Amino acid sequence: MSLVIIGTVAFDAIETPFGKTDKIVGGSATYVGYSATKLGVNPKLVAVVGDDFPNETITDFKNVGFDLEGLQVKQGEKTFFWSGRYHNDMNSRDTLITELNVLESFNPVIPDSYQDCTYLMLGNLSPAIQAKVINGMTNRPKLIAMDTMNFWMDIAMDDLKKTISMADVLTINDEEARQLSGEYSLLKAAEKIQEMGPQFIIIKKGEHGALLFHGKEMFYTPALLLPSVVDPTGAGDTFAGGFMGYLASTDDISFENMKRALVYGSALASFTVQEFGTDKIKEVTSDELKERINEFKSLMSFTHK
Amino acid sequence: MSLVIIGTVAFDAIETPFGKTDKIVGGSATYVGYSATKLGVNPKLVAVVGDDFPNETITDFKNVGFDLEGLQVKQGEKTFFWSGRYHNDMNSRDTLITELNVLESFNPVIPDSYQDCTYLMLGNLSPAIQAKVINGMTNRPKLIAMDTMNFWMDIAMDDLKKTISMADVLTINDEEARQLSGEYSLLKAAEKIQEMGPQFIIIKKGEHGALLFHGKEMFYTPALLLPSVVDPTGAGDTFAGGFMGYLASTDDISFENMKRALVYGSALASFTVQEFGTDKIKEVTSDELKERINEFKSLMSFTHK
Repeated sequence: MSLVIIGTVAFDAIETPFGKTDKIVGGSATYVGYSATKLGVNPKLVAVVGDDFPNETITDFKNVGFDLEGLQVKQGEKTFFWSGRYHNDMNSRDTLITELNVLESFNPVIPDSYQDCTYLMLGNLSPAIQAKVINGMTNRPKLIAMDTMNFWMDIAMDDLKKTISMADVLTINDEEARQLSGEYSLLKAAEKIQEMGPQFIIIKKGEHGALLFHGKEMFYTPALLLPSVVDPTGAGDTFAGGFMGYLASTDDISFENMKRALVYGSALASFTVQEFGTDKIKEVTSDELKERINEFKSLMSFTHK
Repeated sequence: MSLVIIGTVAFDAIETPFGKTDKIVGGSATYVGYSATKLGVNPKLVAVVGDDFPNETITDFKNVGFDLEGLQVKQGEKTFFWSGRYHNDMNSRDTLITELNVLESFNPVIPDSYQDCTYLMLGNLSPAIQAKVINGMTNRPKLIAMDTMNFWMDIAMDDLKKTISMADVLTINDEEARQLSGEYSLLKAAEKIQEMGPQFIIIKKGEHGALLFHGKEMFYTPALLLPSVVDPTGAGDTFAGGFMGYLASTDDISFENMKRALVYGSALASFTVQEFGTDKIKEVTSDELKERINEFKSLMSFTHK
């Protein structure tokens, strides 16, 4: 089944306690996309870059199976750039630089060949643009998932609530779930957010795993313990790409299958954080992924006497 | 199999965002003990109180199956008293008052009838006293578990390391594991602590669950999501009591059974936090416990295609 992804394709400059990078390729659509390809899906990108974006990356995107018909390359303009520094605990970070560049006037255009979209992943972007993509689909996709962040709650809550009401799955971190719902208990927060529209809420807790809520049903995956976390950038997007990639490749949106999708998302995210940027996730083999899924299984399973 | 528990039996005065209590009965041995009784175990207590300790509680201890031969009641002295205030996020707290009272001169005496001890739980106390109890056992128990806290790392690290080297299971929270090992990664921390002696390390992460490490094996239980957490006091001790109570009642220390024990510990701890002090854990029925174990199972289990 076809997966359409809208999000950023960007340059990131990252500082963590393990080192720092120059401008490297990042962005939500990049991580979502790479992650989905690990599940045999050819993601159809809707995104924008400037003419400074490297040809080698475009070629790599194509080689791993991205459909780039919806990728706009703006001549004479520069690619979105973000720079950040992670604190020692890797759970929080400061943004050092944000240069919107091409994003400032981004007007997503959905190619006709994307209209067969059954799974739509809206990476973190302004809720107005996310809504525009939904409205640009002739037929409503089978499943619409969206990511967002506190920034949009601060400056565009009304727009955000409108877009949320159109989505089936909302992925959000724990603090953002609390801010959006006004509830401290994540259980109550997930209930309230479900009332806003989406029937499935995924609350991401970083190193503490992720929760999936659907009505009274709940499922939890831990984050895999790693000897070291080098760079958390893109972990949430990799997770979303694994989740949606798994659903698209199996074309099954039952709760039971979503549980598996959550485990695949967590497993893929655990690769991303092991190296800077996309260095690790790009190279993950299906054997590595299989092994990691088994690690999750053994971490979580017990026999009940 | 017999379970001996050493720890505090205390008065607590607790303030949380949900309210405050006068002096109520608390203490590590109290919570460990109540929790173990829920698994059909009659815990043998080694502890000390003053003559101000309420007779009704002593009676209740006996009624639920505690063996109190090792409980010293010091005439003319006062029971250990702790008072604390939890912050809004319930993950951290300030100690307002600590009155050691009878604990200052506590000299644990192991009754002869406790010498059949197969499972020994050393609640948080000075490591010298914990070691004294181990040494007071004619035959080494089959499994010795100990709890500790950062306080002892700050003032008695050498003693602590000596006692840790004598234990099979160390329960410790994430920050303490990092302090004890000097490693930020919990994976590396657990490895280093295993080199200190205990073959089993349980890292407690509060609302983020608990991890069990044994060699290269690992198991994780989340904490159950609750509509509200009223008072976290005693959650870690209830967890330890459930863990050791389950092992003692099944008399099986395989890793597979320890995984189940971890789930029972987590399930019992989830009751404690729902009301102040021991109000909830005291009243838990076996049906309630069974239901909660099932909730854990559904929260954690997925079928792998």
